[in-house]
Amino acid sequence: MRVKKNGNIEEITALWMEDKNVVFIDQRLLPHKLEMFVAKSTSEVAYAISDMVVRGAPAIGAAAACGLAQAAMLGQDLEAAAKELGATRPTAYDLFYALDWTKERLQGGMDPLEAARKYIEITVERCFQIGLNGSPLIKDGAKVLTHCNAGALATVDYGTALAPMRIARDQGKSLFVWVDETRPRLQGANLTAWELFQEDIPHSVIADNAAGHFMRLGEVDLCIVGTDRVAANGDFANKIGTYEKAVLAKENEIPFYVAAPVSTVDFSLTSGDDIPIEERSQDEVSMVMGIRVMPEGSNARNPAFDVTPARYVTGFITEKGVFRPDQLGKLEVID
Amino acid sequence: MRVKKNGNIEEITALWMEDKNVVFIDQRLLPHKLEMFVAKSTSEVAYAISDMVVRGAPAIGAAAACGLAQAAMLGQDLEAAAKELGATRPTAYDLFYALDWTKERLQGGMDPLEAARKYIEITVERCFQIGLNGSPLIKDGAKVLTHCNAGALATVDYGTALAPMRIARDQGKSLFVWVDETRPRLQGANLTAWELFQEDIPHSVIADNAAGHFMRLGEVDLCIVGTDRVAANGDFANKIGTYEKAVLAKENEIPFYVAAPVSTVDFSLTSGDDIPIEERSQDEVSMVMGIRVMPEGSNARNPAFDVTPARYVTGFITEKGVFRPDQLGKLEVID
Repeated sequence: MRVKKNGNIEEITALWMEDKNVVFIDQRLLPHKLEMFVAKSTSEVAYAISDMVVRGAPAIGAAAACGLAQAAMLGQDLEAAAKELGATRPTAYDLFYALDWTKERLQGGMDPLEAARKYIEITVERCFQIGLNGSPLIKDGAKVLTHCNAGALATVDYGTALAPMRIARDQGKSLFVWVDETRPRLQGANLTAWELFQEDIPHSVIADNAAGHFMRLGEVDLCIVGTDRVAANGDFANKIGTYEKAVLAKENEIPFYVAAPVSTVDFSLTSGDDIPIEERSQDEVSMVMGIRVMPEGSNARNPAFDVTPARYVTGFITEKGVFRPDQLGKLEVID
Repeated sequence: MRVKKNGNIEEITALWMEDKNVVFIDQRLLPHKLEMFVAKSTSEVAYAISDMVVRGAPAIGAAAACGLAQAAMLGQDLEAAAKELGATRPTAYDLFYALDWTKERLQGGMDPLEAARKYIEITVERCFQIGLNGSPLIKDGAKVLTHCNAGALATVDYGTALAPMRIARDQGKSLFVWVDETRPRLQGANLTAWELFQEDIPHSVIADNAAGHFMRLGEVDLCIVGTDRVAANGDFANKIGTYEKAVLAKENEIPFYVAAPVSTVDFSLTSGDDIPIEERSQDEVSMVMGIRVMPEGSNARNPAFDVTPARYVTGFITEKGVFRPDQLGKLEVID
């Protein structure tokens, strides 16, 4: 992705290998400071994942692949390193997939740096293809709404939901992005706005409450969001609030797209009802920027994700093409 | 309203007259501190309104009535006092209505304290009636969702949206309230949660993004919100995000009620399209608790209100009864 640094424009990714180090954009410091976090050991890579220096399932997977490759370069025990890295965010499927993938290659004799780079390459290539496949949906002058962050920071480069916007821009189209701030953790304001600013894509951040208002006024042409998990019937889970925006889009006859690699479709789940919803700490709602915003005697509820039924989805933008929810079965065959 | 103070429970209102002083709950300090702001002069009452010691259109009207009565008690020029008080929040209709109402009574020879108390009494009585009329809609064990603050703090006592909940509780019903935090200004977390905590009404604060999720899960039995202005056809304006919740309620077949005195219906407006929407400072979105949450180069949009079309409204809860949107014409006759 493009970043503005000391008056220059550089191309970097969310993380990369540099000799035996794993280098990360420290996402904890965004949007105000662009600083790198250099992990020189397995425990430092594990810390980067668990303390959210890096977040987003595909980027976490890439971090784990790099961490394991680093352990191999340092002549350490692979099983022990995989165990330490796997204990960081135990719910992210990509983390375990990446550890298995990398271990298999290393044990098969692949050069560690080569293995890490290959994993990253596959991850980024998928996002690039998602961008190519999704960009025709964005007409010149379109106003696109997105929720949370499904950009380069979450996927090493390009992103999922943001990839079609970036490719459309590269194709010379003008576009404008409405960025839901995405309470409670504000990933829209903190991260998506930062990426769009770096890429010089015009955008405005809005309170999540304002998305419906702008849809009703005809100020939104289409919505594109990411997803954490898609069920076989096309129901999908994503950051809390996604369901609200999908319902509002349908009510206002606005196309609603979900961008994700095919690997996000869990064909073992027949419907979204089977997707477990994580409830996170109340503090994310009750404390804002470290300050409590409600009475000491009040409590908060904080579901981190919601499930949007397939009937609200216009299409899934994948690296294999754009599919209606009822066409997802084809992907099982293709994949 | 009930408040917990040094281990005791007291009954107070958002504001009242005490000798020649106008005393306010200082709403700027909620939810953490319950302190009174004592206004001893016209300019101090004007400051209380303009600096949002008191907010909510009916409460602002009552503050203005008290301010003008105070000026009369202090032997000051009524026209000059009315002018100073009227210059505080120039868009609130209640402010001008209250100044005219009070001036007329004072000029007719009514005792100033009597005039102020009468204005407050009428305001509170309407809210109490709204509570009585709305309480049958809340069944024992109901889970009610509300947005923003339309409680005692905004209306001197009882509130509009919160009045039916308080009366239902007084009638011995158990109920639970979902409180939308209501970004950007967090009136739900700051004020509504505070009122419900004081009244010992069980509640949870949620990110605005989570309201749809809980509706879809069957965890919301009905919604009650306030309104700033209702058009003759039943379209209404209220805090940004209200439209989103109304659409989600309809999609999930949840009754959606709007609580307001009849005086809030503007029969001169044929539809909600004629209601002007105030756009407030970007800073309310870009700064959270004084800290900037988006890049310096990004901008925000901040509509303070939205318009919800009448087709999403199950009924208007007024002091005259509960009316469907197509029955609003009757209110014009009644009023």
